[in-house]
Amino acid sequence: MAETRYDYVHEGAEIYRRSFATIRAEADLTGLPVDVARVAVRMIHSCGMVDLAGDLGYSSQVVAAARTALLAGAPILCDAHMVASGITRSRLPAGNDVVCTLSDPGVPELAARIGNTRSAAALDHWLPRLDGAVVAIGNAPTALFRLLELVADGAPRPAAVLGIPVGFIGAAESKEALAASGLEHLVVHGRRGGSAMAVAAVNAIASEEE
Amino acid sequence: MAETRYDYVHEGAEIYRRSFATIRAEADLTGLPVDVARVAVRMIHSCGMVDLAGDLGYSSQVVAAARTALLAGAPILCDAHMVASGITRSRLPAGNDVVCTLSDPGVPELAARIGNTRSAAALDHWLPRLDGAVVAIGNAPTALFRLLELVADGAPRPAAVLGIPVGFIGAAESKEALAASGLEHLVVHGRRGGSAMAVAAVNAIASEEE
Repeated sequence: MAETRYDYVHEGAEIYRRSFATIRAEADLTGLPVDVARVAVRMIHSCGMVDLAGDLGYSSQVVAAARTALLAGAPILCDAHMVASGITRSRLPAGNDVVCTLSDPGVPELAARIGNTRSAAALDHWLPRLDGAVVAIGNAPTALFRLLELVADGAPRPAAVLGIPVGFIGAAESKEALAASGLEHLVVHGRRGGSAMAVAAVNAIASEEE
Repeated sequence: MAETRYDYVHEGAEIYRRSFATIRAEADLTGLPVDVARVAVRMIHSCGMVDLAGDLGYSSQVVAAARTALLAGAPILCDAHMVASGITRSRLPAGNDVVCTLSDPGVPELAARIGNTRSAAALDHWLPRLDGAVVAIGNAPTALFRLLELVADGAPRPAAVLGIPVGFIGAAESKEALAASGLEHLVVHGRRGGSAMAVAAVNAIASEEE
């Protein structure tokens, strides 16, 4: 009986319950629509920072629009493999396709031809499925900028854009551009963002289950 | 010529260069060993927060130990699929295996039998490869606690543990326990952490290339 044991909560559902209770106790969610607040709780859970709520930007119907699209079977288009990897398939309401085209054949050549990143070039492979899709960008500002350029130039419009790229060069600006675009959107303003937050947003919207 | 264009940096290498320059200008990296500072820069890049440097904890040889292990072909054992997904294979110096056992057959049953999460139970499937491995934990505090329990009970010792779970229940405590364990370790103290930071740490250690 020399086995070493630490004192911690072992049960997954209980960890979730206590985590979400802590977040709701500490985070200032006032002013957020109820459905956005629910998404915010899960995003905060993914990063450990309750002040994230203050940086959220959104259109009032974004959660409803994304949810409706998922229920109707819309694909989820992701800019990064980590985003696609993190989405919990069992939460998706219609066995929705989760798509990341970053490693598709031809993307490096296309990136060189258009003078942009591979993340941006990969969006051309979204076009056949972009109409009414749910877009989840958790990495590359260039992907978000290019999405806005394509849509402005007449590409099909996604149902909702969860635009949560991260970083120091272009991230904040790309999210401001999305917020001004007229698309249904959810963003984390500023430098913060990332694949885990984007995944959390998708997973929150995909299922009513906490 | 009605094409919409935003003003942003399109070239991946230039985005990296400017990002890392911004981080080195803004983050307080004084006091960090040079090799840890290099890892810190990439971790900050993954989350957009320069103050992350202040929460780093590490043993002085952790980067050297992890790097030596990778050069010798050690596997990278990950607690979450997102972590495994984000590691850039082309940066790995020896075609190292990237392993995530979370979805292995039998893990849910094992979790029920040992009364712990699936993330913790999945570690039993690491045991044949744990000796000298590089461990990257970017999600579950329960996985980190269980690793410490197994090692204290005589399991093989990994070469280094990048212990960066995130969240509100157990995350901070699990990282404190790792820092006190005597294992070579890198942690982000407190609630912050996550798969992107763990991936960034692995990618930084894997290659000298920025």
